[in-house]
Amino acid sequence: MTNAALKLVTPPNYVALDTSSVITYVAGIKSLSAILGGSQKDWTSREVGDGNLNLVFIIEGSTGALVVKQALPYVRLVGESWPLPLSRAHFEYQALVEQSFHAAAIVPKLYHHDHDMALTVMEYLSPHIILRKGLIAGTLYPNMARDLGIFLARTLFFTSDLYLNPVQKREKISSYLTNTAMCKISEDLIFDEPYYNAPLNKHTSPQLDGFAAKIRADLPLKLAVQELKHKFMNAPEALLHGDLHTGSVMVTADDTRVIDPEFAFFGPMGFDIGAILANLFMAIFSQDGHKNDKAYKDWLNQQPQILWDEFVSQFSALWETRTSGEIYNTRLYEDSPALKVQALQMRLDTIWQDALGFAGCKIIRRILGLAHVEDFESIENPDIRAACEEKALIFARRLITERHAFADIKTVLKIIP
Amino acid sequence: MTNAALKLVTPPNYVALDTSSVITYVAGIKSLSAILGGSQKDWTSREVGDGNLNLVFIIEGSTGALVVKQALPYVRLVGESWPLPLSRAHFEYQALVEQSFHAAAIVPKLYHHDHDMALTVMEYLSPHIILRKGLIAGTLYPNMARDLGIFLARTLFFTSDLYLNPVQKREKISSYLTNTAMCKISEDLIFDEPYYNAPLNKHTSPQLDGFAAKIRADLPLKLAVQELKHKFMNAPEALLHGDLHTGSVMVTADDTRVIDPEFAFFGPMGFDIGAILANLFMAIFSQDGHKNDKAYKDWLNQQPQILWDEFVSQFSALWETRTSGEIYNTRLYEDSPALKVQALQMRLDTIWQDALGFAGCKIIRRILGLAHVEDFESIENPDIRAACEEKALIFARRLITERHAFADIKTVLKIIP
Repeated sequence: MTNAALKLVTPPNYVALDTSSVITYVAGIKSLSAILGGSQKDWTSREVGDGNLNLVFIIEGSTGALVVKQALPYVRLVGESWPLPLSRAHFEYQALVEQSFHAAAIVPKLYHHDHDMALTVMEYLSPHIILRKGLIAGTLYPNMARDLGIFLARTLFFTSDLYLNPVQKREKISSYLTNTAMCKISEDLIFDEPYYNAPLNKHTSPQLDGFAAKIRADLPLKLAVQELKHKFMNAPEALLHGDLHTGSVMVTADDTRVIDPEFAFFGPMGFDIGAILANLFMAIFSQDGHKNDKAYKDWLNQQPQILWDEFVSQFSALWETRTSGEIYNTRLYEDSPALKVQALQMRLDTIWQDALGFAGCKIIRRILGLAHVEDFESIENPDIRAACEEKALIFARRLITERHAFADIKTVLKIIP
Repeated sequence: MTNAALKLVTPPNYVALDTSSVITYVAGIKSLSAILGGSQKDWTSREVGDGNLNLVFIIEGSTGALVVKQALPYVRLVGESWPLPLSRAHFEYQALVEQSFHAAAIVPKLYHHDHDMALTVMEYLSPHIILRKGLIAGTLYPNMARDLGIFLARTLFFTSDLYLNPVQKREKISSYLTNTAMCKISEDLIFDEPYYNAPLNKHTSPQLDGFAAKIRADLPLKLAVQELKHKFMNAPEALLHGDLHTGSVMVTADDTRVIDPEFAFFGPMGFDIGAILANLFMAIFSQDGHKNDKAYKDWLNQQPQILWDEFVSQFSALWETRTSGEIYNTRLYEDSPALKVQALQMRLDTIWQDALGFAGCKIIRRILGLAHVEDFESIENPDIRAACEEKALIFARRLITERHAFADIKTVLKIIP
């Protein structure tokens, strides 16, 4: 990482909250007090931020509850030596607002945003749990893959040239353009560090030592990954969530909510899709280390296809009825009506290939890079864990280097051993 | 065109100059008076704007001369019914400054910029003429193709992720992001209008009627063109000139200057390269309608290759010695030294294929769209003109639809009949 140039800067009126001051803060805002009900002395608060970057408080009152998420000016996982701008709270809020225009049912309700405090107050999702934990525990979520397909289709379509005119699109691009520090984390941790001997890398050792060394000398793979990094940095197709893994999704049996879009930026559509597919694939590859039964594994294996199919179906319907942008000008269809369908297919093909490539990158970074995932980490026996991880690495490598050759998700699922 | 929403807005202190008021304006600025020498009464001015958009004055004094270029708030070619923002003068100045950092010898010297007057004062290039006119007249320019290769390599490299860090790159992207009206002209006139029956289209008729109809029903072609439009709108790889045709280049026997970057924006590198190649190709295709000898045609045929080879040579040298951006992180080369060379080749391959595609689009728009080029227009016999144009259209179509299949410029030149 080369964020050393960043300084730990906070506005004069920024104060990091604690479980006591957060109650005073909330009590000072009428609309929030009204949600909690009763008086301040009846409220309880606890800090539950288990992520790497932020403070997260749950405040419960007599009639309601809410979540206060506040950014810290550094990476919580690492400490003050790794500063990270508070502005990410602003980008996250902005993205949540945008996403709620297009997929209100699949994001948390927003109650309040405080720019200087780098803080957003939102709906307390209960009894939701983090999707990743649910998948490890072997819980079925009948709507999850479909909801995520809808979320992706709508947020990507409505922030692209297919829907926005160039003035609107450029205004939106502009309002995320300085989320540079967050993009740089992705650029470094996803596309670069796993492919050289970076100080913060880790992997299951010694089991994967040989494989890690092989990957770091794998020329066609590294070349393909750099091509994907180039696209990540040079393709502002739509507003991305930017970090859409199964830890950014909260679920109940029938409800799905996407949270934490602080990495939001305009990038290639395939990146968000690839991210969530990668995390479903990792859930699948980790099953050999968990105690779930065959019926569960069969259900899990179907989820990538359900998600992609729903994305295609929703995106195609929007393409048919809601294109108001200036790409694929409707006048072009006059002499060639078939163009409309073929253009959609061409675009979906590109998104698909990008998604596979990015999915591969996301898997490799979670096994050989800095930040790992509980799916694998919770497998206590390192030999079993390494065996799962190695299978996932081999799969990921093929997704990246052969991404133009997989015709559909069935052909991808076939290479999962 | 759908610029109807734009209004004819000018700042309160904006006044369009004429040959008399431009002298008063220049006399009010000491540094400019000093260039002209003597006193105001010795100066002469003439308006020479032969382009479609602006006023251009040449002021000559007793010891020197200069050019005053002022934007009008509408498209000069069409009139006040087609408003166009004055801001393009600002983007043009900004691009000229940027280009002069990287290729000072190949752009005009800048003397003065007035934001509210939408006006830039620059070096009077004399005895330079417009390259397009020189090529039609059969003049040899021994340095031209090489100079343009240098200009392209340096301006594209130094404004890309190869050289800039992400903060610098995003700042630069941001400062061109609102040049939307100019980008929209390209989006409409290059990628859309030639492919449907747009009111302002024109072509050599009736000779090309059939061919125009065929192109407008040519599904694979239209699909490929829309893919290129998508890239034009979604690939901010580097600062482009944006309108790099042979009318934007001024030459003498040994000097080459690139002017008029008012279409400047961050886009795909291949667009600028394709634009200038397209115009060299059109010069070649128009030769059957001009009286130049075989030796001249042979010289002209060599220019695309000289330009591309010089671009590759310069770009490769910069890649070797000047990469300070964060793409293709040098640490990746530690375990795979060959990656550096292969990554360059991969990038050049993409730029090359993009350039061919964009070149094809640029040729078609000049034969079937609104704005034509003198290379063809000056061929008086419409049958001869149409024959030249038809050959160029067939060639352009292949560049677009088969752009991934041309290994190098030699294979491209081979299909010129």
